[in-house]
Amino acid sequence: MTRGSTTVRVDVAQRPYDIVIGRGLNAGQILPKPRTVLLVMDSHIAPLQGDAVQGALEKAGHRVICGVVPAGEESKSLCMAERLYAAAIEGGLDRKSAVVALGGGMVGDLAGFVAATLFRGIDLIQIPTTLLALVDSSVGGKTAINLAHGKNLVGVFHQPMHVLADLDRLITLPDREYRSGIAEVIKYGIIRDATLFERLERDMDRLVARESAVLEPVVARCCELKAEVVALDERESGLRAILNFGHTLGHALEQTTAYGSWLHGEAVASGMVFAALVSARRRGLPATELARIRALIHKSGLPVSSQAPDGTEKPWVELRKAMESDKKSIGRVPRFVLAKSIGSVEVDCEVGEDVLTDAYKEWSCQS
Amino acid sequence: MTRGSTTVRVDVAQRPYDIVIGRGLNAGQILPKPRTVLLVMDSHIAPLQGDAVQGALEKAGHRVICGVVPAGEESKSLCMAERLYAAAIEGGLDRKSAVVALGGGMVGDLAGFVAATLFRGIDLIQIPTTLLALVDSSVGGKTAINLAHGKNLVGVFHQPMHVLADLDRLITLPDREYRSGIAEVIKYGIIRDATLFERLERDMDRLVARESAVLEPVVARCCELKAEVVALDERESGLRAILNFGHTLGHALEQTTAYGSWLHGEAVASGMVFAALVSARRRGLPATELARIRALIHKSGLPVSSQAPDGTEKPWVELRKAMESDKKSIGRVPRFVLAKSIGSVEVDCEVGEDVLTDAYKEWSCQS
Repeated sequence: MTRGSTTVRVDVAQRPYDIVIGRGLNAGQILPKPRTVLLVMDSHIAPLQGDAVQGALEKAGHRVICGVVPAGEESKSLCMAERLYAAAIEGGLDRKSAVVALGGGMVGDLAGFVAATLFRGIDLIQIPTTLLALVDSSVGGKTAINLAHGKNLVGVFHQPMHVLADLDRLITLPDREYRSGIAEVIKYGIIRDATLFERLERDMDRLVARESAVLEPVVARCCELKAEVVALDERESGLRAILNFGHTLGHALEQTTAYGSWLHGEAVASGMVFAALVSARRRGLPATELARIRALIHKSGLPVSSQAPDGTEKPWVELRKAMESDKKSIGRVPRFVLAKSIGSVEVDCEVGEDVLTDAYKEWSCQS
Repeated sequence: MTRGSTTVRVDVAQRPYDIVIGRGLNAGQILPKPRTVLLVMDSHIAPLQGDAVQGALEKAGHRVICGVVPAGEESKSLCMAERLYAAAIEGGLDRKSAVVALGGGMVGDLAGFVAATLFRGIDLIQIPTTLLALVDSSVGGKTAINLAHGKNLVGVFHQPMHVLADLDRLITLPDREYRSGIAEVIKYGIIRDATLFERLERDMDRLVARESAVLEPVVARCCELKAEVVALDERESGLRAILNFGHTLGHALEQTTAYGSWLHGEAVASGMVFAALVSARRRGLPATELARIRALIHKSGLPVSSQAPDGTEKPWVELRKAMESDKKSIGRVPRFVLAKSIGSVEVDCEVGEDVLTDAYKEWSCQS
């Protein structure tokens, strides 16, 4: 679109779409014809970036209705979805209208669910404002709502019609959140691209410093990998589950601390170390590669053990129980994604209790 | 399956499925492998038919969790969906589990929405207990939730994996509700099958009397027609909208009386007469065919004018306004399905105000 942007095509069955990655992208140009648009943001992003995006949309002739929800994971609820439906209908949206999600994963998931279900589905545009959303949640069509019983238990698949991955939108992102996004970047290297992993080993300091010369191509590569996986398995019946590497324990870490101690990426980072420890025991992941995974995560400043950044540690019995109620569990038995080597993983692995507790011991006493 | 049942294949893209039409069908056989099942019913059907279906499912090895909701359209809410999610999760359902909807349109829509959204979609089986659900709402994958702003404003497309159209389940259906279902049967004749329409002209008395020799083949033909339309246009981007014949005004009749005066089929019946009057003016529907449509609806005991069965009549200005907020409206302009002749209709017709008011005058003074 502008200044050397990169376009990645997501080749899903019903309607392929583009992710445009660049800087200073014009949000007004993403919708070809003037429409009524519900612009969903949280109370943190709205004052920082809301005016700019609303202005760009209006300049392009769109009519904008704003739907601002309180910042924080609690907003990913049916109750908040109901409020957004009301705002949309009172604002005059119809089946030809669109929802624009401007924010991180929470806003993307919630706005995506609203777009997927209002009038049985209207168009959705994702404008991510966090690294995590840029490389992960904004692409692929997963939408979600939390229940009292757990996170993301309700949702549907609804592909966006466009993802505007404007790196300038990261400018308001705090360092800890940015770092949390790096966990998912590292994940792509482990599950599908050893060359990306090697590049991260070389350039991690520059990535942490948000240097454009590293950040742009790395984000583009992650989007390519995600697009590839999503196109091959849109509804997570097989391959797509590789994206859950590190997530089985990661979700348990978040859940047992009521989402107060770990950011999602931090929990995934530590969960990946645990998954690598299990992989070494069950899938022959070489000790050198296990060490490289742990070292890269550590170098990026992310946690590698059972200790949360705020010092909280939960006992194994609690974590183990939380894994049972994971959405991926079948008959309460947790499933793991395990690595055979850096760049190659297997999904849907059952793991014996002895291996889990053994891996736990090594993982919990790392610093 | 048993005693001369008829099977109709619904050839949708992702996973084709069967509608089995017959009597005394075994609900236990619809799921190949033993599963955990959430059986959704309303408080009216649960005591009448719940035990039989639960027993059949359990005999076939399934574990059954019952989700009973209060009878009535008010239950088609996000709040009730949330209660069913809770029952499902506390009952141990996982991604391999299924939802069985035993009931009429409300239960089918609500249970369908829950199946479509729990864990991003699990299997759904429809066991309709009303004629309306048998020939219409149980087939085709529409699910829906009402908002304070209107009916069916929230929903997704989620095809069932099986529809068990057991005519014995109609046994508990009151006559007025049964008759309401006949409206949708007549609709199939008008929109796509002149031969079915002629059969109904011949056999309406026997259909009203629920004679198996007429009811079974007529229901089977309606299911075939619906299956054909759904397979050609799964997500209502074109052809499928023909199923909305009579619904633009029909929905307005229901909405302006707060769903208290008209059953859905009654409102559709009267709405079809209105649509036929507009069709005669705008699409050259011959006067003889207009008269036959009106006569057949009248013969089935359904309303043909602006007067509800309880005597209520709403002024045109209210009905006209209600049509604006119809889900099918674009920029508040209502769209109509109009008939060129019995058996052939056109969708997405805009109609001038003069024609609407003129048709209204003729329609409102019929008895």
